[in-house]
Amino acid sequence: MRNLKATLRYDGTDFAGWQVQPGLRTVQGSLMEALERITRERTKIVGAGRTDAGVHALGQAANFKTSCDIPAENLRRAINSFVGPRIRIDDLEEMPDEFDARKHARSKLYRYTILIADFADPFLSRYAWQMRVRLDVERMRQAAQYLVSTHDFTSFRGAADESRSSVRTIYSIELKPGVHPFTNEPIGNVLLIEVCADGFLHKMARNIVGTLVQVGTGKIEPTRVPEILAARDRQQSGPTAPARGLCLVSVEY
Amino acid sequence: MRNLKATLRYDGTDFAGWQVQPGLRTVQGSLMEALERITRERTKIVGAGRTDAGVHALGQAANFKTSCDIPAENLRRAINSFVGPRIRIDDLEEMPDEFDARKHARSKLYRYTILIADFADPFLSRYAWQMRVRLDVERMRQAAQYLVSTHDFTSFRGAADESRSSVRTIYSIELKPGVHPFTNEPIGNVLLIEVCADGFLHKMARNIVGTLVQVGTGKIEPTRVPEILAARDRQQSGPTAPARGLCLVSVEY
Repeated sequence: MRNLKATLRYDGTDFAGWQVQPGLRTVQGSLMEALERITRERTKIVGAGRTDAGVHALGQAANFKTSCDIPAENLRRAINSFVGPRIRIDDLEEMPDEFDARKHARSKLYRYTILIADFADPFLSRYAWQMRVRLDVERMRQAAQYLVSTHDFTSFRGAADESRSSVRTIYSIELKPGVHPFTNEPIGNVLLIEVCADGFLHKMARNIVGTLVQVGTGKIEPTRVPEILAARDRQQSGPTAPARGLCLVSVEY
Repeated sequence: MRNLKATLRYDGTDFAGWQVQPGLRTVQGSLMEALERITRERTKIVGAGRTDAGVHALGQAANFKTSCDIPAENLRRAINSFVGPRIRIDDLEEMPDEFDARKHARSKLYRYTILIADFADPFLSRYAWQMRVRLDVERMRQAAQYLVSTHDFTSFRGAADESRSSVRTIYSIELKPGVHPFTNEPIGNVLLIEVCADGFLHKMARNIVGTLVQVGTGKIEPTRVPEILAARDRQQSGPTAPARGLCLVSVEY
């Protein structure tokens, strides 16, 4: 059996998330259907990040095993032809038999896009959380630093999370200005929050963003973040930020 | 009666175009519904460009008359609240009674986005015409220059056009590289075609793009463009480029 690793992007708007679900259009399901049509085998595709409904990816990684002998580049093109324009595999490469896109991921980078504006921008509305409040970015940066390093992230864990351990290591959290996707002009009112970690609990990235936003609006003091972490209680942190603002940018091995 | 001019943007993906049509979701129809709910008056909104289904706008202009006395900025906010995230009025201002967004437009700038790639980019698929061929941009620039200036554009006119005259003046056609809307990195394989003219016949911008693409692939010689214009025959020019690549960038008065 060959073991193939795919690097792919998708617009998550019209998908019920990564993970296959009966009767719903999912990214994993779409890829598995395409593969089955091409190879006549039913194959499980393992994704590095099980992104939720509405979450996007620029650099998701996944692997699957197959006995078909179509060269990787041809297989990549065949899958892309089947999955439609909202998913695209950018790279497909042969890996050693033991490679597992999920277990072997060393770090993942998620980017969250916030638009501060009175009304949604039509060209950002699928990709950003629009809000009217002003955010104090310096306060948010200060709060973010308390999250960097190894912690028990129970306070930022979604209820559906099934991980055995809730300890994760955040390598960096960066806040930076964004650029308009259609005019390409820098827009002062787009804020990107990039979180790089060895792994993410379910909804952890969005719960971190929701908490940082409450710090930015003044609802939570930056210095409260260590207490929130120590409490190991989801009630202590901020609300979950909407899925559409989140994008899995890259996975490192 | 007040006469108000709106400058607005919209993602045309989910609209059956600008013009109101019974049973369909259109931009004009959505705006008129919002206005009726707010002002309790049925008002006609006149758009500078009657964009087709799937065509986008960053700077459409429109005007409407109303006897309501809500201040313009409050009215703008109220309309934005009603129309949803895919339309946004960026500016609403009082105009003299005689102002007509359609008749008084002096020039319009349309931008067309082409993605040259083997497969659609999920984040560009609503906003670009993806194609696999290589385009010779220098040839396209040469061909474009024959279209600039005042001509009878019958050869580029859609069948549904009802204009009395098919003479229009193109002020400029520019071809330039684009930038990825989500990563903000320049992508060598995005080509923008910007056409500025005093007016556009139905589908004229898309027929010009379709023709320039055939020049870029070698199907049409640049020097044939004057003959195509002179023929006054839609059969002589290239196919209509897909709507999703087109965006009305601005309207000048």
